[in-house]
This record gives sequence, structure tokens and C-alpha cells, in this order.
Amino acid sequence: MTEPKDLPKRKIIYDEDGKPCRSCNTLLDFQMATGKVSPVAAMSPMASAFNTAVTDFIPGSRTYRKVDPPDVTELGRSSWTFLHAMTAKYPEKPNLNQQGEMKDFLNIFSKVYPCHWCAMDFAKYIENHSPKVESRDELGQWMCEAHNHVNAKLGKPKFDCNFWKQRWKDGWE
Amino acid sequence: MTEPKDLPKRKIIYDEDGKPCRSCNTLLDFQMATGKVSPVAAMSPMASAFNTAVTDFIPGSRTYRKVDPPDVTELGRSSWTFLHAMTAKYPEKPNLNQQGEMKDFLNIFSKVYPCHWCAMDFAKYIENHSPKVESRDELGQWMCEAHNHVNAKLGKPKFDCNFWKQRWKDGWE
Repeated sequence: MTEPKDLPKRKIIYDEDGKPCRSCNTLLDFQMATGKVSPVAAMSPMASAFNTAVTDFIPGSRTYRKVDPPDVTELGRSSWTFLHAMTAKYPEKPNLNQQGEMKDFLNIFSKVYPCHWCAMDFAKYIENHSPKVESRDELGQWMCEAHNHVNAKLGKPKFDCNFWKQRWKDGWE
Repeated sequence: MTEPKDLPKRKIIYDEDGKPCRSCNTLLDFQMATGKVSPVAAMSPMASAFNTAVTDFIPGSRTYRKVDPPDVTELGRSSWTFLHAMTAKYPEKPNLNQQGEMKDFLNIFSKVYPCHWCAMDFAKYIENHSPKVESRDELGQWMCEAHNHVNAKLGKPKFDCNFWKQRWKDGWE
């Protein structure tokens, strides 16, 4: 069976040790890179079945299923949820200590984020756009713009940051 | 219409300003506390419809729906995903600088986490169980145990920490 000629080229991200990086690739790309799914299978309508059929439990448990580690998409979605919710709870008028802690936190976050190319990009963004920590409004706006920077890189539409508070703090009524 | 007598009592968590805290309660509790859903409606089989019917887009966008801020459950799930993935990418043998940064990060995390009672509980846990940052294995185990501490508080079963690497780093094969 030959592979179709119009198969999309996928760029795999590798770890420093030369192995495909799970938290830097989509699950499908990771599975293809590690030979768990062939590119042809990935193109088929049945491809999604490869991503969801994890139904057995871990040994000794009747609760916890054998769920695989998060891929880059799930990791990104989860982390933005945390980061935006954090800005929504940041003090309206933080004192200097709170401002310093938030700066430190974002700096370290940009080092320990578990997808190295995302982390480097965030660190560079922080370097060029110093986090605005003087008020909740400013930090919420800053985070929304940081997220839009990533959205643009991924070819996603921008979120209108005028609505950051409804999305992450107050809801839409 | 009277309310059924066996309606469960729900304890609502409030913010410092006396308003119900969205990121400290489940969505349903928050909606009940703010009068958006009556306790009777919350008990009905249609209750889930109140949680999911957010189908309109934000003004000016054809992409972004009016999604409400995360409740305490979504926030918790997202944050644990980030935290465990972070331990999976922590260096196997971190230098002293990396160890110090991780300690600082977890300390600040326990202050800025956007559910205040969860944050206080995490801060207390850190105080009594100093983060083990001398290797990836130790940090992964430590985070798994911290998560189990919360699982126990919520009446959830413990996760067998012998499997933390399969769950958060290597997958299950």
C-alpha cells in the first residue's frame, strides 16, 4: 500500500535528547513520529478513534483510566485557563510586593513551561512586552494580548481584549 | 411551588467582597447562589441544559463564543494538568538555580492561585511538606502526593503515585 502523494508534511518537535516531544506536538503528530499511527491511518476518517480509545484502568484502580499525558494543545488550553483566571483574581490595586511576585511568577513560568519552544516564545514576549502588573485591569489586558500573540502565530483569530473580563472574570449575563 | 424537603444543602464560598466566588464554587452552585438557576431547577434532569447552552458569539467575532469563566472544577483540572506536565519536563538533575526557581514558583503559585481557599490549602501543604526539587522523579512524586492530598479532601480516590510517569510523562504504551 503506497502513501497518497498529497499527504501533508508535518514538522515534529524533538526534545533535547532527540526523542519526539510529547508536550510540544499534537497527540496525532506524536503518535505518527513514534510509529504508533501511520500517516495513512492518520488521514483516514477512522483517525479519531486512535485518539480516544483509552478505556482500561490503571492497575489496582477502578477509577483512574490509562489517560495519556497532555499534548501541546491540551497543555496550552489548560495553561491559558489557569493564567487568565489568575489575572481575574489579581488584586485591583496590588501592593508593590504583590506586583513583584507576579513579575517573578511570570518570569519563572516562561522558564518551566513544559513545551520548550512555547516557553522560549513566551520568555521572548515578556522581554519585549514587560508584564503590566500595576492593576488587575492592566494585567488582564496584558495576558489577553500575550494570548493573541500566540493565536496569531497559530493562525487563529484574535480575541477582542475589550471582553477579557466577561470571558475570564464576570461572565456574559 | 414548594421546594422538595430532601434538597441537598450546598455551602457557597464567598469572595472577600462578600459576593459568591465563581472560581471557588462549581458552576451550578455559583448559578444557584446568584439566582441564575433555582435549587429546584438544579435538581431536575434538565439541569445540565443550564450549563451548556452558550451558543452565541461575542460581538464582532465568528469564532469566539460567549464562554463563561471557569468554575472551581475546570480551574482545578486545568491547573493540575499544567503542574504535572511541568514536573514531567523538570530536569532529571536540576542545578541549584533550577531548584531554587522551582521552589519560588510553587511558593508564588500557592499565593496567586485564583481560588482563595484552594490556594490557602496548597500554601499550608507546602509549609508542611516542603517541595522536593532535587530531581524530576522526586518532584513528580511530590506533586502526585500533593494532588492526592486534595483528592482526599474532595472524597476522591487516591491515584497510585507509582504510575505518575506513565500518566504525565511517558504514556501507557
